[in-house]
Amino acid sequence: MAITTDDYPFMAQALRLAERGRYTTMPNPRVGCVLVKNGAVVAEGWHIRAGEGHAEVNALAAAGNNAQGVTAYVTLEPCSHTGKTGPCSHALVDAGISRVVYAMEDPNPLVAGRGLDYLREHNVQVDGPLLEDDARALNPGFVKRMERKLPFVRCKMGMSLDGRTAMASGESQWVTGKKARGDVQRLRARSCAIISGIDSILLDNSSLTVRIDELEMPDAEQAAAKQPLRVVLDSNVRLSRKAKILTQETPILVVHNGSADADKLTGWPDHVEFIALPANDGRVNLGALLSELAKRQCNEVLVETGATLAANFLRRGLVDELIIYMAPKLLGSSARPLFDLPLVSMSSALPLKISDMRAVGTDWRITAVPDTEY
Amino acid sequence: MAITTDDYPFMAQALRLAERGRYTTMPNPRVGCVLVKNGAVVAEGWHIRAGEGHAEVNALAAAGNNAQGVTAYVTLEPCSHTGKTGPCSHALVDAGISRVVYAMEDPNPLVAGRGLDYLREHNVQVDGPLLEDDARALNPGFVKRMERKLPFVRCKMGMSLDGRTAMASGESQWVTGKKARGDVQRLRARSCAIISGIDSILLDNSSLTVRIDELEMPDAEQAAAKQPLRVVLDSNVRLSRKAKILTQETPILVVHNGSADADKLTGWPDHVEFIALPANDGRVNLGALLSELAKRQCNEVLVETGATLAANFLRRGLVDELIIYMAPKLLGSSARPLFDLPLVSMSSALPLKISDMRAVGTDWRITAVPDTEY
Repeated sequence: MAITTDDYPFMAQALRLAERGRYTTMPNPRVGCVLVKNGAVVAEGWHIRAGEGHAEVNALAAAGNNAQGVTAYVTLEPCSHTGKTGPCSHALVDAGISRVVYAMEDPNPLVAGRGLDYLREHNVQVDGPLLEDDARALNPGFVKRMERKLPFVRCKMGMSLDGRTAMASGESQWVTGKKARGDVQRLRARSCAIISGIDSILLDNSSLTVRIDELEMPDAEQAAAKQPLRVVLDSNVRLSRKAKILTQETPILVVHNGSADADKLTGWPDHVEFIALPANDGRVNLGALLSELAKRQCNEVLVETGATLAANFLRRGLVDELIIYMAPKLLGSSARPLFDLPLVSMSSALPLKISDMRAVGTDWRITAVPDTEY
Repeated sequence: MAITTDDYPFMAQALRLAERGRYTTMPNPRVGCVLVKNGAVVAEGWHIRAGEGHAEVNALAAAGNNAQGVTAYVTLEPCSHTGKTGPCSHALVDAGISRVVYAMEDPNPLVAGRGLDYLREHNVQVDGPLLEDDARALNPGFVKRMERKLPFVRCKMGMSLDGRTAMASGESQWVTGKKARGDVQRLRARSCAIISGIDSILLDNSSLTVRIDELEMPDAEQAAAKQPLRVVLDSNVRLSRKAKILTQETPILVVHNGSADADKLTGWPDHVEFIALPANDGRVNLGALLSELAKRQCNEVLVETGATLAANFLRRGLVDELIIYMAPKLLGSSARPLFDLPLVSMSSALPLKISDMRAVGTDWRITAVPDTEY
C-alpha cells in the first residue's frame, strides 16, 4: 500500500496544526501530527516550543491507550536522536503505531531517513513524502539552515505607491498604516533575528522589539515571549550608549569589523554582545553575518533597514523573500528610493516573481522573490 | 408598488448588456434594456453605436408583438428628445409597456426626468433609481461630461515595483509585459481621446493607435473601428513632420499656445488639426484643453504621457483615475520617477484610494483614485 487520496486531508490537518507553532517553536521546526484509526482522528498534537514535547509525543499523550494500530500523519520525519526529549520514532514504535505517513524527510542531509529507517526496521509501514512543498514552506528557515547552513532571509520595506520610503529629509511617519505596522510585528515575532544597520538605528531610534499590544492576534503574549535577537550591523561601532534599542533587556548583537578601539567595546549592559566579523573595505561581509546567525540557530531572519543596506543584501543574492507594504499615496520624485540600486540599463534590472499580493488595511502587501530563472 | 428584490437580477442583466457597448457607443452612453413579463425575459437589447438604435428600441424590435404589458429595465432614463433616432419614451408607450424600472436619470440636469415624466403622463408605472452606482460607473465619461462639461480623465502609467518608468537614459523597452500592453490597448479603445505630450511623442515616437491584433479580445475589429482622437500637447509646435503618429490617417489634434509662426501650422496632412488654447507661462492650460475635449463630445480620455505632464494633470486635480501597471522587477534608484512631483514633507503627500488590484499576466494593474476625503 502507498499514499491514497484518503491520506491528503489528514496530512493537511497536520500541516494546519504545525502552523500553530509559527511564533514559538524556534529554533526547532514547526511540526504537526494527527493519529487516525479507521478513517477517524484519534488524537492530534503539535510542537509548541523547544525543550517541550515534539508533535508526535504530544499526539501520543492525547491518544492515551488508543494509539495501538493507528496511522500517524507527521509533517516532518520523526526524529531518531535523543535531544532535549527522547526520539519520536522510538515513541511511535513503543506505542504500537502500524503506519506512518510523513510530509518531508529531515532536511539535514546527515540524518535524513534514519527516523524512517528505524520505523521500517520495527515493522511500521512508512509512506511519503506527501504535500512536501507545503511542509517545506512551513519551515523555510529551518530547512534552509539544515540544507545550506544559512538562515532564510526576509527583507521588509514600506513604501508609497510611487516607490518611496521617506521624504528627502528622512521624514517617514507614517508611510504605511496601523494594520501594516501590526503585520510587521507578526513578521518580527516569527523571526529568530532582526537585522538592521546602524544608520537606521541612529536615524529612526527604533527598538526592533515585538510588542504584545501591536501584534493584534490571539496568543500575542506567547508570540512575544521569545524576543528575536536584535542584530545591529555597525562596522565602526557608532552605536550610541543612549540608543533606545538598549532599553529592552533582550539580546542585542552588535556586529563590527574588528577595527574599533577596545574602550568602545567595554562598559555596555550585559544584554549587548559585540562580535567582529570579516569585512571588505571596512564593511562587514553580509555572507559571514548570515553564517554566524545560522550557527546561532537562527531560522528566519528579518532585514529591517534602509535603502542602502537592503540593496546590498539584494545585490549579493542573499534575500530569499521581499515583503513590501505599499501605501496608497504618492511621496513624489524628491523622496527617498526603495533600494539604493544605481542601475544603468534595462538588462541590469532585477527580475522578481510576485508570489502574493493582499490588502492589509488600506495598504497592500507585496510578497516577491528574486527570479533566478529569468 | 415600488422596487422589489425581484427587480435586481433583471437590472443587473441590463447592466451587463450595456457593457457590450463599452468600445463602440461613443459619444453616446452605454445602455442596456431587458423586457420582462411574468418573471421571464421576453427580449433584450443594448446600444451598439451612435446613429443606430437605442437599447430600448433594439429590445422592442427583438420582442416583436410581445411587448404589450411588459416591464422594461433600462440602465438610463429613456430619452424624450428626437436625435438621430426617435425618442425612446415614446416608443415604449407606443409598444404598450406597462412599467419601466430605470437605473439612473439622464445625467444632463437640463433634461433629467423628462423621459420619466412622459412615461408617467402616459400611465406607465415608473420605478427607480435601481443600482444607480453601477449605472454611473458604466459611463463615467458621459456622466461627467453631462454634469460638469468635462471628460473623465484616466491616467495610465507603467512602472517597476520600485516605482520607476524607464532608465535614466530613457530606455524603457519593456518595463511591463505583453498582457499589460494589450490591456492598455483596451483602455485606448474605450477612450474618445488619448492625450500625450510632445516630449513623449518625440522620445517614444509612438502612434497612439488602437491595434486590432494587440487588443486580444472578441470583436476586436469593432472595438478598433472608431479610433480615438489623438491629442498632442505641443505648446510651441515642435511636432516633426516625419513623426510616426502622422502615418495613420485618423484625426490628430495638436494643441498649442498660439504663439507659433503661421508657416509652422501649414502644409500638414488633412487629418491633422491645430488649435490654440489659453496658456500660462507659455504652456497650454490643461483645464481649457479638457473643456475643449468635452465640447468635442469626448467622454473618457486617456492620458498616456511622461512623468512631468502626468504630474501636472495630477497636481491640478484633473485626474479621475490612475491606472498603473506594476512590473515585477527593480529598475533601481537612478531610473526615472513615476511622477515628476518634487514634494518636501509628508503633509504634502498625495493621498490615493486603491479601488482595484489585479494580475495582468506577470504584471499587476493598480487602479487608484485621488482621495479627496483625506
